[in-house]
Amino acid sequence: MELFQVVTRAEAQQKLVCYWPLPGRQELTLSLLEALGRELARPVIAREDVPGFTRATMDGYAVRAADTFGARESEPVFLRLAGEVPMGRAAAVTVGPGEAAAVATGSMLPPGADAVVMIENTDVAGEGLIAVFKPVAPGQDLVRQGADVRAGSTVLPAGHLLRPQDLGVLASLGVTRVTVYEPWRVGILATGNEIVAPEDEPGPGQVRDINSSTLAALVRECGARATLYGIAPDDLQDLTARVRSALAENHLVLLSGGSSVGTRDLTVRVVEGLGESELLFHGVAIRPGKPTVAAVAGGKMVVGLPGHPVSAMVVFRILIAPLLRYGGYNRRTGAGTVTAALGRQVTSIPGREDYIRVRLEAGPAGWVALPVPGGSSIISSLVQADGLVLVPLEEEGLEAGAIVEVELF
Amino acid sequence: MELFQVVTRAEAQQKLVCYWPLPGRQELTLSLLEALGRELARPVIAREDVPGFTRATMDGYAVRAADTFGARESEPVFLRLAGEVPMGRAAAVTVGPGEAAAVATGSMLPPGADAVVMIENTDVAGEGLIAVFKPVAPGQDLVRQGADVRAGSTVLPAGHLLRPQDLGVLASLGVTRVTVYEPWRVGILATGNEIVAPEDEPGPGQVRDINSSTLAALVRECGARATLYGIAPDDLQDLTARVRSALAENHLVLLSGGSSVGTRDLTVRVVEGLGESELLFHGVAIRPGKPTVAAVAGGKMVVGLPGHPVSAMVVFRILIAPLLRYGGYNRRTGAGTVTAALGRQVTSIPGREDYIRVRLEAGPAGWVALPVPGGSSIISSLVQADGLVLVPLEEEGLEAGAIVEVELF
Repeated sequence: MELFQVVTRAEAQQKLVCYWPLPGRQELTLSLLEALGRELARPVIAREDVPGFTRATMDGYAVRAADTFGARESEPVFLRLAGEVPMGRAAAVTVGPGEAAAVATGSMLPPGADAVVMIENTDVAGEGLIAVFKPVAPGQDLVRQGADVRAGSTVLPAGHLLRPQDLGVLASLGVTRVTVYEPWRVGILATGNEIVAPEDEPGPGQVRDINSSTLAALVRECGARATLYGIAPDDLQDLTARVRSALAENHLVLLSGGSSVGTRDLTVRVVEGLGESELLFHGVAIRPGKPTVAAVAGGKMVVGLPGHPVSAMVVFRILIAPLLRYGGYNRRTGAGTVTAALGRQVTSIPGREDYIRVRLEAGPAGWVALPVPGGSSIISSLVQADGLVLVPLEEEGLEAGAIVEVELF
Repeated sequence: MELFQVVTRAEAQQKLVCYWPLPGRQELTLSLLEALGRELARPVIAREDVPGFTRATMDGYAVRAADTFGARESEPVFLRLAGEVPMGRAAAVTVGPGEAAAVATGSMLPPGADAVVMIENTDVAGEGLIAVFKPVAPGQDLVRQGADVRAGSTVLPAGHLLRPQDLGVLASLGVTRVTVYEPWRVGILATGNEIVAPEDEPGPGQVRDINSSTLAALVRECGARATLYGIAPDDLQDLTARVRSALAENHLVLLSGGSSVGTRDLTVRVVEGLGESELLFHGVAIRPGKPTVAAVAGGKMVVGLPGHPVSAMVVFRILIAPLLRYGGYNRRTGAGTVTAALGRQVTSIPGREDYIRVRLEAGPAGWVALPVPGGSSIISSLVQADGLVLVPLEEEGLEAGAIVEVELF
């Protein structure tokens, strides 16, 4: 009774992804918050440096690093306090040799200075004089103009899915509107003579439509737009007409029920009747979900899901969700955690939990988590990072190669 | 320079969860799709059995099981075809001794029958006669009335977060509107003299507000409602007035920037000035994110996040997101995968990928994944299941205790 050619899941995915992304998506220009979760239609290029000026990343004093060389607890270096740089203002003071200027985290570094001494390593030594107990190297505890994002560089490529941290980086660049693709439009059509709408009272032998609600919600969770086309009886002409009108208004149409054994040929005959259509597969070697049918027709896609709600949901999650959400199967699938091998050693201080930002790379034996350089003042590190790795409270660090759970951003 | 008492992450979470859920959430009655991701304010009780009638779960013939005992390939049992049960109709035929009635998957089981023989195990043996090549046991390939959901039983408890599959189960029961809590309302206020709005041109020493965009997007991703209250200068009176008005309109107010070292006492002084307030903690032993402050005031919560965007985001994800999303820290956190030990052996057929629905239970050594009984026709198995375990293509099954990745629903 095996009437159709069954493909493996991998083969089914491969066939679907050949036609993905489907053509015909419109571009929309939206505010940042409206664009959350959407796919960038064009790359975003930085129009300016971030930060726009060299900034202190600690509270303390802006100094000439060379002046602090040799300083120690027992033999501090004394510097003359030349003034202070108020937050949010241009530096009105210049730091000359033997001088320091008070700065807060985020203050502009005054001319002449090339490093910041943390306030914890200083003391007030008298009227207009500070003592420095530790030397600093040039560049210490500051972030230079353009070190985070350089004007003219690509901040986010086309196709990028906008996450909360991406919106922050765009805000920092003064980019408050972005061009994204419209959400995928997905039409949903339940089929079956025995199916009635959830709000109707089923007669003898009838059941209420479950799949339309479940599939519409799954589509929404993928950031796509679901439109319901009601319940079609198992009638070729009626079903074809409904599929045709759903295809006109959507990129993808999901049928549920028409691929069960009793009516399995109906979906295929509907697809054949559409013209310009190609059957991609008819049956997948998975359980539940075997009687799944997929076809393309006129640049649109039709997938016939099994009628059993459990099967329909499993097939949606395996075959459809990755397309809608990521446009393929090669990217990591969704928020949550993935297991990875740490790409290099990281150190930590016992008594504190360290959250290390990592980038994921596919290695021969699975994911590799590479720590992203840059302190917490480096905004672009959030764009580069795929997730966080926790160094537990009492650990001194993690070895290279350690198996870690990466909490995805 | 350690001016405040630092707590561990676990202690911080414990303090926050003592006050969660905050009071004052309204109840809303919504359609199913509108209620996706929301928290049920009241339990849903089934008003009827699901299925409402005993149904076939295979295409084939409804029979009296005893008539098939002894049937085999070489010696089939012959049954008289009494009629058929059309899909979506009441069974008009009765199956007497030595009789069978044609049924499709989902058909009502006709009176007299107590099992279904798959069409694959039968053949047409002449006019009005079928041959049965395999015996069936009573109850085979059917699902009895009420076997899925029994009228009067609690389908979903109050507090349940509505997933796509839950909506499907509600639809099957004819429940098309549910009473849920309004989303958490979260006010977001950026602070700092150096901060300007993303749409403004920063002057010398100024930077654009990153955190409001990032935090609003993170809040949205948790299903809560974000309202921005702009950028407050580092001024006690101004900030207090803004926090007060944000608190009046929200359950939770997030400040960003006011807890950095330079202004760290400002948030605390604001909280103290609110009256009826209690400081929960002031500093958490995590990096990044140490200078985090939390307080409750008049049944509302105020959290001061670090000003660095990376730190603000990490703290949000660790301390705030689990509250907004799950109301605590004890439930599994988000979609994705978790690693678990399989609770009992499962079998599979090589050449097919099996997706096993499992329920997660916390065991002494981590999560245990317990396969949920019920075929793909059992809808309530979707509500009981927390996720899917894959039995790979060429495996014959998985042993009890096997370490598996559970893809969460």
